[in-house]
Amino acid sequence: MVNNSGAFTEAQVISRLREIFATSDPRVEVGIGDDAAVVAGTDKRQVMTTDMAVEGVHFRTDWSSAFEIGRKVTAANAADVLAMGATPDYLLVAVALSGREEIKWIEELARGIKFEADLAGLQVIGGDLSRSEKIVISMSAIGHCHSPISRSGAKVGDGIYLSSLTGWSAAGLAILESDFKPETKLQALAVSEYKAPTIDYGFSAIGATSMCDVSDSLIEQAEQVARASGVQFSFDQKKISESPEFTELKSVAHDLDQNVWQFIFTGGEDHVLLATGKNLPGIQIGEVAQGAGLINIPESVEKHSWKHFN
Amino acid sequence: MVNNSGAFTEAQVISRLREIFATSDPRVEVGIGDDAAVVAGTDKRQVMTTDMAVEGVHFRTDWSSAFEIGRKVTAANAADVLAMGATPDYLLVAVALSGREEIKWIEELARGIKFEADLAGLQVIGGDLSRSEKIVISMSAIGHCHSPISRSGAKVGDGIYLSSLTGWSAAGLAILESDFKPETKLQALAVSEYKAPTIDYGFSAIGATSMCDVSDSLIEQAEQVARASGVQFSFDQKKISESPEFTELKSVAHDLDQNVWQFIFTGGEDHVLLATGKNLPGIQIGEVAQGAGLINIPESVEKHSWKHFN
Repeated sequence: MVNNSGAFTEAQVISRLREIFATSDPRVEVGIGDDAAVVAGTDKRQVMTTDMAVEGVHFRTDWSSAFEIGRKVTAANAADVLAMGATPDYLLVAVALSGREEIKWIEELARGIKFEADLAGLQVIGGDLSRSEKIVISMSAIGHCHSPISRSGAKVGDGIYLSSLTGWSAAGLAILESDFKPETKLQALAVSEYKAPTIDYGFSAIGATSMCDVSDSLIEQAEQVARASGVQFSFDQKKISESPEFTELKSVAHDLDQNVWQFIFTGGEDHVLLATGKNLPGIQIGEVAQGAGLINIPESVEKHSWKHFN
Repeated sequence: MVNNSGAFTEAQVISRLREIFATSDPRVEVGIGDDAAVVAGTDKRQVMTTDMAVEGVHFRTDWSSAFEIGRKVTAANAADVLAMGATPDYLLVAVALSGREEIKWIEELARGIKFEADLAGLQVIGGDLSRSEKIVISMSAIGHCHSPISRSGAKVGDGIYLSSLTGWSAAGLAILESDFKPETKLQALAVSEYKAPTIDYGFSAIGATSMCDVSDSLIEQAEQVARASGVQFSFDQKKISESPEFTELKSVAHDLDQNVWQFIFTGGEDHVLLATGKNLPGIQIGEVAQGAGLINIPESVEKHSWKHFN
């Protein structure tokens, strides 16, 4: 029994999950309920990724609903598939529960996963239920692509682009961590982005020479791409500040008496896409130059970054 | 830093993991280090499964070495692929660490994973490192097959087989939970099976009508297969007791003053394969009959089963 009051059994939970994750995708031959799922093969290349979230580290149940938590972890996995220039196909979900959850909470978690999986085009084909003091949600996503876009292809002269502005999730976290109550639509949006980020599923990466998902922070990920590609990333404060989103995020930072550049450059968990290339969609934030490392980071940015492993 | 004494960074850990998990498999185009791994497609059906293990629930660091823990979780995932009649291909590994681990412990965990992955034919192609109070290891395994063997194909008149005898892991757990110190080779073997079970990678499932991995307990899994197939499983105590392994396990149970049938029918985590069909290899333990449920379970067996979710 999950619930010590004896309200439901594991079999009942699995039965509800099978209903919630039911799929009519003809590629899924065996779904939830056997030792493993069975899917049709593909002649395309496949991308495979995994991402784990831990209660108290990646999410808090007093801040986020089960639905939002389900969305957030699914989004993080989907973003890693998108970041390879690939199309999401399948999702495996392993969850450890404390045993204190109501069945309604578990169902809402599943519905949040299903909601985001539908946005991403992911079919939930299998999972595992386990027991742990703190809730842990670990997923693996599988997708396909023709030509993967790695982190190592950035070329001197390329523009550097974000699919949308980073920093919203960090601003939301700052609101939640303070006694500040959201009063405006933009403040509420920041909180919402922290709880379950909006993934740029429609971002067209055609022509991108490199791409990656900004899960840690912009400076962290930009440094990784610059290193992998053997180039230098030169940021352009003026270009960034011309984006309409910048004005909006700046107003939220102002409300909080915080530095908008700090949010943009060191905030984590936005899961927007960082790409290099010519005339890409999204927001241009700089140019790829000869050399190494990152230059022209706004001086006011303190370079501690936000990482779960630290 | 993983270690609060500042001995190593995440980048150093990942660098060591890339070395340990290095593969020359030509199907792996992009391995550890990008947003996702990239592998060549396959025209075969694919099987996909996930399995999570939590410190204190599935393993104890004072009982098992990091190497054994790595082997055990990998084995559980590999067994789910085998249980579909499939060949293991790829493994994704997400690990949450407490931050109190030495880098040597993390490397040994990785070496245990690599050791078992090599036995299984699994390439470790990606992962995620995270932070948690208790260690959590979650894996997803991907394999391929021509025709999957599900749980629903058992036919009346089939024999019921185990790839090897269940109960060894439970006997090992009983030894660890008592003050009993292993004195014989068989007792030591039981403890070893608990710490890292031997998977029957060579089990030939040709001709099997149904198959499943015994991760919970024999009665639990047999009931699932009987239900999925719409048949009855009739056990044969005499046949089981004729297997040479039975005599060995019985002697260990005797040393512990415990019931060998209890170990065999309700012990968990052996990860042997339960299959139905005609003239299969392994140990025949009964016959598939018309009807429903399980019959001829030895009377001395108390039917509580061993499940992590309970």
